[in-house]
Amino acid sequence: MLLTPEQENEINALRKAAKPSLRDVSPGLEDMLYKPIPVLDHGFVRVIDYMGTDAAIVQAARVSYGAGTKKVNEDAGLINYLLRHRHTTPFEMCEIKFHIKLPIFIARQWIRHRTANVNEYSGRYSIMDKEFYVPAPDQLAAQSKSNRQGRGDVLEGAQAARVLQILKENSVKSYAEYEEMMNCNEEGKIFDEGKDGLARELARMNLPVNFYTQWYWKIDLHNLLHFLSLRADSHAQYEIRVYAEAMLDVLKAWVPITYKAFMDYRMGGTSLSAKGLAIVKRMIAGENVTQEDSGMSKGEWRELMQSLDLEEVRKIEVA
Amino acid sequence: MLLTPEQENEINALRKAAKPSLRDVSPGLEDMLYKPIPVLDHGFVRVIDYMGTDAAIVQAARVSYGAGTKKVNEDAGLINYLLRHRHTTPFEMCEIKFHIKLPIFIARQWIRHRTANVNEYSGRYSIMDKEFYVPAPDQLAAQSKSNRQGRGDVLEGAQAARVLQILKENSVKSYAEYEEMMNCNEEGKIFDEGKDGLARELARMNLPVNFYTQWYWKIDLHNLLHFLSLRADSHAQYEIRVYAEAMLDVLKAWVPITYKAFMDYRMGGTSLSAKGLAIVKRMIAGENVTQEDSGMSKGEWRELMQSLDLEEVRKIEVA
Amino acid sequence: MLLTPEQENEINALRKAAKPSLRDVSPGLEDMLYKPIPVLDHGFVRVIDYMGTDAAIVQAARVSYGAGTKKVNEDAGLINYLLRHRHTTPFEMCEIKFHIKLPIFIARQWIRHRTANVNEYSGRYSIMDKEFYVPAPDQLAAQSKSNRQGRGDVLEGAQAARVLQILKENSVKSYAEYEEMMNCNEEGKIFDEGKDGLARELARMNLPVNFYTQWYWKIDLHNLLHFLSLRADSHAQYEIRVYAEAMLDVLKAWVPITYKAFMDYRMGGTSLSAKGLAIVKRMIAGENVTQEDSGMSKGEWRELMQSLDLEEVRKIEVA
Amino acid sequence: MLLTPEQENEINALRKAAKPSLRDVSPGLEDMLYKPIPVLDHGFVRVIDYMGTDAAIVQAARVSYGAGTKKVNEDAGLINYLLRHRHTTPFEMCEIKFHIKLPIFIARQWIRHRTANVNEYSGRYSIMDKEFYVPAPDQLAAQSKSNRQGRGDVLEGAQAARVLQILKENSVKSYAEYEEMMNCNEEGKIFDEGKDGLARELARMNLPVNFYTQWYWKIDLHNLLHFLSLRADSHAQYEIRVYAEAMLDVLKAWVPITYKAFMDYRMGGTSLSAKGLAIVKRMIAGENVTQEDSGMSKGEWRELMQSLDLEEVRKIEVA
Repeated sequence: MLLTPEQENEINALRKAAKPSLRDVSPGLEDMLYKPIPVLDHGFVRVIDYMGTDAAIVQAARVSYGAGTKKVNEDAGLINYLLRHRHTTPFEMCEIKFHIKLPIFIARQWIRHRTANVNEYSGRYSIMDKEFYVPAPDQLAAQSKSNRQGRGDVLEGAQAARVLQILKENSVKSYAEYEEMMNCNEEGKIFDEGKDGLARELARMNLPVNFYTQWYWKIDLHNLLHFLSLRADSHAQYEIRVYAEAMLDVLKAWVPITYKAFMDYRMGGTSLSAKGLAIVKRMIAGENVTQEDSGMSKGEWRELMQSLDLEEVRKIEVA
Repeated sequence: MLLTPEQENEINALRKAAKPSLRDVSPGLEDMLYKPIPVLDHGFVRVIDYMGTDAAIVQAARVSYGAGTKKVNEDAGLINYLLRHRHTTPFEMCEIKFHIKLPIFIARQWIRHRTANVNEYSGRYSIMDKEFYVPAPDQLAAQSKSNRQGRGDVLEGAQAARVLQILKENSVKSYAEYEEMMNCNEEGKIFDEGKDGLARELARMNLPVNFYTQWYWKIDLHNLLHFLSLRADSHAQYEIRVYAEAMLDVLKAWVPITYKAFMDYRMGGTSLSAKGLAIVKRMIAGENVTQEDSGMSKGEWRELMQSLDLEEVRKIEVA
Repeated sequence: MLLTPEQENEINALRKAAKPSLRDVSPGLEDMLYKPIPVLDHGFVRVIDYMGTDAAIVQAARVSYGAGTKKVNEDAGLINYLLRHRHTTPFEMCEIKFHIKLPIFIARQWIRHRTANVNEYSGRYSIMDKEFYVPAPDQLAAQSKSNRQGRGDVLEGAQAARVLQILKENSVKSYAEYEEMMNCNEEGKIFDEGKDGLARELARMNLPVNFYTQWYWKIDLHNLLHFLSLRADSHAQYEIRVYAEAMLDVLKAWVPITYKAFMDYRMGGTSLSAKGLAIVKRMIAGENVTQEDSGMSKGEWRELMQSLDLEEVRKIEVA
Repeated sequence: MLLTPEQENEINALRKAAKPSLRDVSPGLEDMLYKPIPVLDHGFVRVIDYMGTDAAIVQAARVSYGAGTKKVNEDAGLINYLLRHRHTTPFEMCEIKFHIKLPIFIARQWIRHRTANVNEYSGRYSIMDKEFYVPAPDQLAAQSKSNRQGRGDVLEGAQAARVLQILKENSVKSYAEYEEMMNCNEEGKIFDEGKDGLARELARMNLPVNFYTQWYWKIDLHNLLHFLSLRADSHAQYEIRVYAEAMLDVLKAWVPITYKAFMDYRMGGTSLSAKGLAIVKRMIAGENVTQEDSGMSKGEWRELMQSLDLEEVRKIEVA
């Protein structure tokens, strides 16, 4: 169940209650406001509130640069310039607040981004929901052999079935024991009135990290872009990347000019080291550079070739 | 001049352009939006945008505490509880953005509050405005004799006149030299087309710190309360306190329940050390405690007596 | 096992390798450096590095206040003054780095303190250790009936035994399944060479939050004091409080003057609201104040009476 | 005067007082400890304390990645990898504390880097020093005509002389008035015992922003690298760049491996946008790309050509 009926009703009521405001409004984001975007098997991302639009970034830059920005007539040109030159403070002038439901092991990665405000559901105070994540069969990846932090081929057949069985049964059993120790069920209904239950803050320790938690997460646009550049990246764990991808859709609706600049300057771009830049210059000048005469280690060279889409070619040349 | 005619027109246009939004709206703050509140001789504070109301604090607290908060029916009760027990994260769920015009020496104090987003007018990029702060005659305070960081009696007569003369003439002269070095005036009009002007980023160094700068300043409600508790305090320098006081009016209009709780639990309250608490307990029990048998230093004892309004009494007793 | 033999050897080697340094040295903390302080059943806290001592706080304050502080001859007097008046920046000039081993559910509370640097053991990259927390029998507390976030009486007999059985068996079983899914054991020894193992980043989701993780945690002294004031408090969950208490011992060895001031002004003290202060003044003046004429809610009144140790008395008066 | 005789003596005493410590020691930085590196006409940078060395970065990374990092035998390889892949948290495990003397207008730029701890000399509390910055003749740059934020040719002859005259005379006069208003001189000697002086917190507003202030500034290595990448950059204002350059020397002595990686991956490198990367790929494949068919604006194209050292060539081609 993505949302409780109570939550559904609340959202419907909120979506009917437009009020006049003198503030800057993002039409694209108003369309999405409060509505959950499903992620994984039981998770979601939804926008609860926001401040500012592309116009707020331009406005803040013009405070900094004064009359000097008047000649940049076009907002897109200015936003492109700011993002290209890492003038990040104007992007901090926009803010967004999400309600997110996510597995605990993903919440643990996510919270490492410190520059955000968080209110998380408390397992000390309240009973945890009986909802847990089990990967879809096409996500049951084996450990990568080349990359300690990556995934390899998808497991299949009996082995895949066994993994799913373990994850599901362990989740169900752990939660039943959680209820038993607390002497009450998910809704707080007491099993045995003659007995005390273990404190919630202790009983919860029996639950595995694939259980869902939820939080309000509020962040400024600059820090959101930084989060997305790391978590929508192909090296991020799949289970957090799908949240970042849902948030890219939010970004596109909210601040379309910034979204476009971000996809060009951050997501689709690359960084060159001093050595990498020197190699690129030599290649443009027509020189045939090899790893041996590049000054780079093998690993670094491979990464550079990948970023320049030269891997195949080089393999052939080597062969 | 508080605002340029251009800015006045922009504000008038914005204040006529109410748009429907599904977001939470603060009616009190909508009334103030964009309008400058004058501070000092040329400064102002005005609200540019905001996110959330008292309801957003309650909502965030309920995400954390889940069903557990249902029994607290009243929002005010919950907000009081949160503030009393320093559960600060729900207050971080509200955000506000100000446009502030202030003297540089106040900006230097202000910026020490790090947990905010800032876009300041750039003296590298643009020509500084010809506006400077000169204290009103009733603020020409002498150096305090007892407190190295405080003000004493107000200077009067010839001495006061001389101070005002110095400050005004120095400001006017410094700015004229600033223009001369740049070879252009405030509006950028070049004096001598045959000459280059000194770079703006260098010429500005001739201006004293009573010149005005301006910035956009965006902060969450928790950190705003912290800022106000320090800067609306009687020990803060007068020239920053008047900004904090203007912002207290904004706070009252924006989040009236939080404002009331803040005035009770923070602004009007006090902290007792372990020693101070022990002394208060003895006094309540009817004991006549003196500094000598208090375990406190003289300075600490005096501060405690002041906070308990017992100074006068004690003085009489001593006499 | 608190430490691996490898870690023990490393610590012994480090503790024999004193090197000359021109930096400020804390003799008390040098005695503790690198040595683990056991916490809970498998956890520990140990200091890895530090910067500054009480003298560094005094030195930083003197940079701010210049010649003005010369008359405060005594370091303790200055540190007391700074802490009493919440002049917090000089305390930020000291820094400490801990190595901490702690259960995941405690790590989740801990990480909410954002103003620290963290490097945590990665369950994506490496195999999690087979170590989990099981409470000591005297900590098997029932859910408090009056405080949704607190603990009540300790469970006993068959019920306690059952809780311990569940926690232990669930931990052992979850880890065995973790190994089975990865197709390798704790040391990375592969079970079936003919099969791939599930990616570590997925398999770990089967582990409950009572498993131990570890991290390096670096923080400045001001933020450490804030952390300790919240987590060494009697309202903190027992399992994090014991870490905070171990760190209070570290604080005492590291910066003994600050420790003493902290225990007086923060840990042992209390805050009074405007209403609370008014009531205390009336009580000191000899008035018999009751909740009804206090202007306070019942909850707030009860908290005030507790902080003033007047609860018993008032109960009798009411009776 | 770079340092007072009192400060000189203190430094000499500290540099003779080596003490044994079990902590990690950086021999290169010990050689520099406490000694001022002169910057501009009266400023300096000196290191007061530090925590960690290159080894601490490696150690922290190994906590995160566990046994997984054992195969990377070489510290330099690991540090290169971390910096290349923006794994920034291990660099946060090192900390450094500087004492810096700098003009106020540079302090205003500097303080915008928020992730640092600061104790600044207080002009409310103490009398400001009579020291101000006047640029060397070769730094009297004209306003750039192409870049609103940059410098052009150096002013010469009578115009240069006039600028220097203005800056010096204005500084001397402003300080004399500052003393007159306070009714005391730099050392606090009162001029007229029969009169009060204006409060220091007011009198200071007469001083221009080329006066020197000083502060303790403490920052972790990751944030220091970020600061240096922006402020040692050729686009930074000269007067802050010289401080950054002095700090690069400190970096080299403190963490030589990190310094080398930083110069390769950050200072000497460049970023390519998605469009930029596509153009580079086409150029490497031998295609003759022009701005017109690049998809880039003229400004963006010019920046790309500059970073690839292709500007001259293209100019010729255009001609």
